Amino acid sequence: MDDPSGFPLLEHDHPIRVRYQETDAQGHVHHTTFINYFEIGRVEMLRAAGFSYRELEEDGILLVVSEVNCQFFAPARYDDLLNLKTRVISSRGVRIRHEYEITRGDTLIAQGSTVVASIGKDGKVKRLPNWLKLG
Amino acid sequence: MDDPSGFPLLEHDHPIRVRYQETDAQGHVHHTTFINYFEIGRVEMLRAAGFSYRELEEDGILLVVSEVNCQFFAPARYDDLLNLKTRVISSRGVRIRHEYEITRGDTLIAQGSTVVASIGKDGKVKRLPNWLKLG
Amino acid sequence: MDDPSGFPLLEHDHPIRVRYQETDAQGHVHHTTFINYFEIGRVEMLRAAGFSYRELEEDGILLVVSEVNCQFFAPARYDDLLNLKTRVISSRGVRIRHEYEITRGDTLIAQGSTVVASIGKDGKVKRLPNWLKLG
Amino acid sequence: MDDPSGFPLLEHDHPIRVRYQETDAQGHVHHTTFINYFEIGRVEMLRAAGFSYRELEEDGILLVVSEVNCQFFAPARYDDLLNLKTRVISSRGVRIRHEYEITRGDTLIAQGSTVVASIGKDGKVKRLPNWLKLG
Repeated sequence: MDDPSGFPLLEHDHPIRVRYQETDAQGHVHHTTFINYFEIGRVEMLRAAGFSYRELEEDGILLVVSEVNCQFFAPARYDDLLNLKTRVISSRGVRIRHEYEITRGDTLIAQGSTVVASIGKDGKVKRLPNWLKLG
Repeated sequence: MDDPSGFPLLEHDHPIRVRYQETDAQGHVHHTTFINYFEIGRVEMLRAAGFSYRELEEDGILLVVSEVNCQFFAPARYDDLLNLKTRVISSRGVRIRHEYEITRGDTLIAQGSTVVASIGKDGKVKRLPNWLKLG
Repeated sequence: MDDPSGFPLLEHDHPIRVRYQETDAQGHVHHTTFINYFEIGRVEMLRAAGFSYRELEEDGILLVVSEVNCQFFAPARYDDLLNLKTRVISSRGVRIRHEYEITRGDTLIAQGSTVVASIGKDGKVKRLPNWLKLG
Repeated sequence: MDDPSGFPLLEHDHPIRVRYQETDAQGHVHHTTFINYFEIGRVEMLRAAGFSYRELEEDGILLVVSEVNCQFFAPARYDDLLNLKTRVISSRGVRIRHEYEITRGDTLIAQGSTVVASIGKDGKVKRLPNWLKLG
């Protein structure tokens, strides 16, 4: 990255232990759980870079999810220790696009992407702060 | 009830269909789900009496749960059609105590109680409005 | 539908009342909630046609979600009464594709699609039963 | 503990970071979330002692919650880093009683207890294995 004001982190790994409440009667992790995990990935990626999504909200910027896509490849089970890889694909204007991979060892569990939009407390879109912009 | 200003409803039945996402890998409804159901019972009891918990919040009164107790007697399963019975036990000052019974036909699934406290937007306790008081 | 063996229902509307637990600190319905709603739409569409997803599972056929896509257009709030429209787009071989629209009155809240795959108790893909096939 | 076959751990601390999805429209952690946390405490306490609840289930012993009680003292918020203290109060026959305290620094957030019962795959109560018994 040649822009020092740009987003300081492009990829982040975060371990997640599957909770019992996240499973369903098929004996697997319920599919919406992985989309909750994506949110954790966005937050922990920011934290690893020294930023806080909570402070962003306190500063009057909300990131709202405008799109999510996910493909599910293999079941995960209770107590699995998963790796969640989060990547920033683009971050400019009012939108950030992330991609995610959830794996257990060498097994790909789920792969997805989201678009989050930056809005102000008035509910209107608002440009991302410079430090969140990419390249 | 001989007090016309009092709470207009003392007992309410509400049907609940179990969602797949509410089950867990034991094949049963996850126990915390029933405590979510209790919240639905409080809201639907108000609605049946012509009131709206949402409007109560919009008027600046939040009801926050300060205590919950629940005993679980039999498992419920995906797609079960349950009955949730909600009773107001007492409602005065800043607190309402409810009791709940969740049944499937003649089978008792769970039985519990909650205490909710009335607080203002400032987070401080606030007397219940008259129409929510009991007897 | 002129094929009597085909799927008996192509479109289904189901009302959903937003629960408090489904909201988040932004004051809106959390985005993953809508994807839980999609699952309810699939189940209720079957039920309206006289079938039971639970019985399907008891017969040894599990429908597992292999893909989900969703776009979010407007926030929904606690206690909103939403309409969930579910459509079967295709149903053959081992896969069913559904589309969904969640609205509040004239307002489009979310729009999405899923692919579910039919698997046996052994975890291997299994052809859909005839009555679930479409045209 | 002077009984080497006894439960090897009587108290366990586990950090929990509040997820966005666990908050509600009041801006706080939804009360049922804490009861989900209790389950995490039971599992992590076992893990810290070198045992796995998953293996226990694979060996045919399910621990099902038969009772839960919780009092809520102060709100928790998104991104709070909480401490969950889990204690075994008694463990004999077919039942284990745990107590829990959830704190943020010096602030007590919630305090509760559960009773879990040991059942076999047939749904009937089953004596706890020796290594889970206390004293």
